[in-house]
Amino acid sequence: MARIVIVGGGAAGASAAARARRLDPNAEITMIEAGGMITHAPCGIPYAVSGVVADYRSLMTYTPEEFEKERNIRVLTHTKAVDVDVDKRTITISRGGREEALQWDKLVIATGARPLVPKIPGVELSGVLTVRLPDDVPHLRAELDKATTVGIIGGGYIGVEMAEAALRLGKKVVLFEMMDRLLPAALDSDMSAVLAEEMRKYGVDLHLGERVVELKGSGGVVSAVLTERGEYRVDKVILAVGVRPDVELATKAGVKLGETGAVNVNEYMETSVPDVYAAGDVAEKVHRLTGRRVWIPLAPSANKEGQVAGGNAAKGRVLKFPGIVGTAATKFFDLYIARTGLSEFEAQQLGIKYEKAVIKARTKAQYYPGYAQVHVKMLAEQGTGRILGVQVLGWDHAVVSYADISAIAIERGATIEDMFFADISYMPATAPVWHPLIVAARVLSRGKL
Amino acid sequence: MARIVIVGGGAAGASAAARARRLDPNAEITMIEAGGMITHAPCGIPYAVSGVVADYRSLMTYTPEEFEKERNIRVLTHTKAVDVDVDKRTITISRGGREEALQWDKLVIATGARPLVPKIPGVELSGVLTVRLPDDVPHLRAELDKATTVGIIGGGYIGVEMAEAALRLGKKVVLFEMMDRLLPAALDSDMSAVLAEEMRKYGVDLHLGERVVELKGSGGVVSAVLTERGEYRVDKVILAVGVRPDVELATKAGVKLGETGAVNVNEYMETSVPDVYAAGDVAEKVHRLTGRRVWIPLAPSANKEGQVAGGNAAKGRVLKFPGIVGTAATKFFDLYIARTGLSEFEAQQLGIKYEKAVIKARTKAQYYPGYAQVHVKMLAEQGTGRILGVQVLGWDHAVVSYADISAIAIERGATIEDMFFADISYMPATAPVWHPLIVAARVLSRGKL
Repeated sequence: MARIVIVGGGAAGASAAARARRLDPNAEITMIEAGGMITHAPCGIPYAVSGVVADYRSLMTYTPEEFEKERNIRVLTHTKAVDVDVDKRTITISRGGREEALQWDKLVIATGARPLVPKIPGVELSGVLTVRLPDDVPHLRAELDKATTVGIIGGGYIGVEMAEAALRLGKKVVLFEMMDRLLPAALDSDMSAVLAEEMRKYGVDLHLGERVVELKGSGGVVSAVLTERGEYRVDKVILAVGVRPDVELATKAGVKLGETGAVNVNEYMETSVPDVYAAGDVAEKVHRLTGRRVWIPLAPSANKEGQVAGGNAAKGRVLKFPGIVGTAATKFFDLYIARTGLSEFEAQQLGIKYEKAVIKARTKAQYYPGYAQVHVKMLAEQGTGRILGVQVLGWDHAVVSYADISAIAIERGATIEDMFFADISYMPATAPVWHPLIVAARVLSRGKL
Repeated sequence: MARIVIVGGGAAGASAAARARRLDPNAEITMIEAGGMITHAPCGIPYAVSGVVADYRSLMTYTPEEFEKERNIRVLTHTKAVDVDVDKRTITISRGGREEALQWDKLVIATGARPLVPKIPGVELSGVLTVRLPDDVPHLRAELDKATTVGIIGGGYIGVEMAEAALRLGKKVVLFEMMDRLLPAALDSDMSAVLAEEMRKYGVDLHLGERVVELKGSGGVVSAVLTERGEYRVDKVILAVGVRPDVELATKAGVKLGETGAVNVNEYMETSVPDVYAAGDVAEKVHRLTGRRVWIPLAPSANKEGQVAGGNAAKGRVLKFPGIVGTAATKFFDLYIARTGLSEFEAQQLGIKYEKAVIKARTKAQYYPGYAQVHVKMLAEQGTGRILGVQVLGWDHAVVSYADISAIAIERGATIEDMFFADISYMPATAPVWHPLIVAARVLSRGKL
């Protein structure tokens, strides 16, 4: 009877456990989670903090008890994996102050990511917050409730989403991003500017291209953000400068890390150590467009990687994870933002020659009421016309699908001509007869289409 | 200087004219339109009738004058093409009671489709209406305004959309469809049932599987619909039993018609007669999944076919139209309906062996407020797992994109495994972390995924 131990009860870990159970009804499966929740959705934290989601406990799909009962998986919460011995195939866990060793035949590392804490003075002050797990919600909310002004450091997904949350709670928001634009890993400057304008409209005091050098305190409590250019009074600070793969256990297991700092895995989610798998935010992914290893930690791929790792841990190479194309989405109030493939700055970094089109369009037929504006940017490879990437921002949640449509196109090697002739739907209430993606492809064709 | 004559000023004709002009600044381009509007959007008629769209004239993108001026295209409205001589390369047109002949070097037939009028007694009665052109809107509205009860014959797109329009005008609606389901060409019975339930909730008196045999009148005005099963009091009747390609001129030109009754064209939109092109609803299309010729008259492909025909008429084989995969969308109030690829009944007709999955899902994360329910049906080919078709109904306009995503997947030969691993986006406000399409693919995999 195979013993499968999975470290981490988030998206990847829980998917791995569920899949392993499905494929091997007899395996002894143990899932270890450092926190109190499993199958949790960190993506929902900003909405639970703001109250859009009424109860943060709803961010958990299953309770540990449900998961144990429904799937016959032993779930150990509030349990830390402190060491691993790959020769003896043991893992040392710590729970309730006691350590014990578990035997495993297959080990799945799904330890996720943790917030990066910048090395600047003052980060240890009270009132300096990070966002990681749904368990954090009550504390985050209680802290924000006490504030008048919230400083957010970092303009990535979490920074933007927490800005909305703080505004919904009636707070003043000052946001600092050291890059020249918001969502710097996702959007180019031209598209990012649309978001910046929207955030300013909602009253966010945006400081782009401004590096935070220190957090100042008073009586051990944060009271100001000091940047290269000024000092800003705040009552609380949210650190949202990014996340890093939590490779502590992986390192102890001696698995190879990639250039990104995350665990290097093959398409079976196998690490360099036999019978040790990694999945989710702790692992690198292959970018299907470039073939390169990247680290883009997001829930959908974590779930699928977990499924692949769990299935293969139970049955051996039954599934392959083909990689990702960098699809991601977020929103700021009613402005929806999505992207896939490569941005201009990524294409430049990789030395890929591209053409681009940036268009403004409507989300419905020109005569149909209630349309929203949408900005679409499309990149195609010079010469081949192969679509490289799409960025979209618009005041309708349906525009997120433009990235989804484009993601499939990119995964499957579509050119701008393929996109132009794609049989995507039209009706007056949901799209113009020339869909914005088709218009973008046409503009990109430089008169050919 | 090439003389290009285009017959028809709708989607295909206007696209052909614009493209020809773009590629040949010197050509003498004439566009002939039987009605008074060009670049019109018949898809918007139901919304203009109901008043959702305030002014029916907004269903026209360009006025004839604008089109003439901006594109340097001679536009002849209220002009009928009455005959064509392909040897002499002339076309006889009739306008203002006078006939004249035009010379052409290239002829593009874009005469569209016309409503089918069933051969039953009473169709000639006053108060029996058809829906074809935006010009019809004032008459349709005036007629409906006089009615208490509207009988709609036909449960296809136009029937369903006109039912919404009549309900919005406060009318009672009795709808008759001789097939056993609504949208019979688009949806299978199981999915169609979701729409039927919604229409009944809105008070539509639905009669499915009930053939209309006669329209009864009183003083020359329609007063009742007689079916195989009963007689129903109505004040007006909308005939929406389908459309047929308007091949009158094409037949005079001697071009080959296909099995569908529409004009047979190759990928260059060339007909069997040299220098005569056809595009839009008058022409057959190739179904990219089956390679078969079909007749599915919709605006998006009409626009693209027009573009191809116009470009090739001007410059000779510069563009190819790759065909369609049967994507279409409509709505009934807040229920959005979309489909692509093959339905079960189409697969059966073609003798294609398939597997199917039918799921219910939510449009957002389970914890996020304001989600809608969505029904998804996915078909895949037995053995290969290649996706054959998707049908979707849901109470959120964004679900239409599920068909768009699937259309690209089908066009590019994706399997259910490809769909499962597709990098489509997730955020709590716009999708569950397991997107409904991914769930459908997983269910279809019968435990493999």
